[in-house]
Amino acid sequence: MKIAILGAGAMGSLFGAYLSRKHDVLLVCRRDSAANAILTEGLRLNENDGTASLYKTRACTNTSDESPADVVILFVKDMDSVSALSANRSLIGGNTLLLTLQNGGGHEKTLLSFADEQHVLLGVTQQGAARLSDREIRHTGYGQTKIGSLSGSKETADMIAGMFNDCGLPAVSVTDIHQAVWEKLMTNAGASALTGILQVTIDQIAAVPESRELCETLVREAVLAANADGCTFDADEEVQKVLSVCENSVGGIPSICADIAAGRRTECEAITGFVVRAGRLHGVPVPTHEAVLRLIHALEAKSAAL
Amino acid sequence: MKIAILGAGAMGSLFGAYLSRKHDVLLVCRRDSAANAILTEGLRLNENDGTASLYKTRACTNTSDESPADVVILFVKDMDSVSALSANRSLIGGNTLLLTLQNGGGHEKTLLSFADEQHVLLGVTQQGAARLSDREIRHTGYGQTKIGSLSGSKETADMIAGMFNDCGLPAVSVTDIHQAVWEKLMTNAGASALTGILQVTIDQIAAVPESRELCETLVREAVLAANADGCTFDADEEVQKVLSVCENSVGGIPSICADIAAGRRTECEAITGFVVRAGRLHGVPVPTHEAVLRLIHALEAKSAAL
Repeated sequence: MKIAILGAGAMGSLFGAYLSRKHDVLLVCRRDSAANAILTEGLRLNENDGTASLYKTRACTNTSDESPADVVILFVKDMDSVSALSANRSLIGGNTLLLTLQNGGGHEKTLLSFADEQHVLLGVTQQGAARLSDREIRHTGYGQTKIGSLSGSKETADMIAGMFNDCGLPAVSVTDIHQAVWEKLMTNAGASALTGILQVTIDQIAAVPESRELCETLVREAVLAANADGCTFDADEEVQKVLSVCENSVGGIPSICADIAAGRRTECEAITGFVVRAGRLHGVPVPTHEAVLRLIHALEAKSAAL
Repeated sequence: MKIAILGAGAMGSLFGAYLSRKHDVLLVCRRDSAANAILTEGLRLNENDGTASLYKTRACTNTSDESPADVVILFVKDMDSVSALSANRSLIGGNTLLLTLQNGGGHEKTLLSFADEQHVLLGVTQQGAARLSDREIRHTGYGQTKIGSLSGSKETADMIAGMFNDCGLPAVSVTDIHQAVWEKLMTNAGASALTGILQVTIDQIAAVPESRELCETLVREAVLAANADGCTFDADEEVQKVLSVCENSVGGIPSICADIAAGRRTECEAITGFVVRAGRLHGVPVPTHEAVLRLIHALEAKSAAL
């Protein structure tokens, strides 16, 4: 199959490398230098066990001459989705499956401007990666990827999950991807967002009483919004799960924390902003998420002004 | 009159200097070196108009041999009130008036352990000062001081206000000091607290849309809590007043911002914490203040851990 990956950051490169074991993978980069490095030297992937492998994929920055792909996977940052899909429209044909594995929620709205419901898939992954250079990444998180189709059809989700499994990426198809998206969001909106404001590692959120309480409040508000949005979460259970993730991620620096530190825009609109919009839509008060969202935007504005 | 000032920081030194024009002022310092500097060289006060004056006051760190003062003014940080009053109990006799000009609200609870209601006064001041050394300060804010007695008796409040006026510190006595305390708190809890989290100057709170919105939310929540607490504020008016203060204080760094930057404990419990406790007492939700309070404590914990 021809698989195009929009966004050759750490995660896009990780999935590109694994999928290239059995498929024709095209990594669509933002910079020519990155595409050239991958093309000429290959992608180097460092695993947790100390091994490293070299993967050969195609790479480019301009896809106007490309024919449609069988699968397009969106891995750019939330705020770059529309521009990335628009610039690479030639890759999306009538039969192309469009899959997002981006952080946060609400991406389907964007995808539906580029493909119909039968061809849109959402996924959440526990895989993690860090970028070392244009062509070298470290595989930092190993875990399951859940895939679901927007139409609820199991066939296409099964096909994508099977393709991932065949290439060494553990995956399952789920019938309610909406619940899976919210589930991952609990950690990102409940804990990662706070690391952006406080500039601490994620374990510190659970270790300090006041941020632990705040995390619990955020998760409880998010559960109310999610359940009003059709999900079936138990608040106590979600609080425990999120705090466990924090406690088991000693030294972990979520991207929202790294982005604020580096003066970059964050993906907070797809994370905390998703909770805020769901709360407003369903009339569920989420005042702590409202405050967190504004604080993160104010911190972004502070960097932008420097 | 014999006036003892507990806490020879910038504000304690400012009031001590002015009051020494007509009274016997004793500045109670924390460190011997500070007391010695003031005793041997005098207090140097730099005014906004470029003039500087030298004031002679008494200064010490140990007051166990002192007789009671006519007036004791509390100027230590909120969290040091109990220890300062306990250590200097000899200054507080049966006729001593005990006045706090500390930031924030709720100080009366502490004062009432050291004097009865007839002898306790609260004040809020628009005066401002910055400390340059142990014996030198800059007078940065000129404005009115409001004085009210806890019992509501106008006589003692009039006397203190008169004493301040005589010494060049504009002051009025008010019958509802509670409203005045809440009024000043609107700016501190609505804007200053945010500068602690965001590490920006106070004008930036009004200049950036998201922190401006957050400020407005904080003021509106505080007005609801204050009015449930017996005050009579108009929310729109308070929002406008706080935003004006921000806009007119270009480059202003509230103490809560400076304290976080320096890794010191802040007075947030007397400011945001006061709003949170009033909200809980009266059943008024103040979720944004709850979030702000926890974030400031988490930032204090982060500094403490370094």
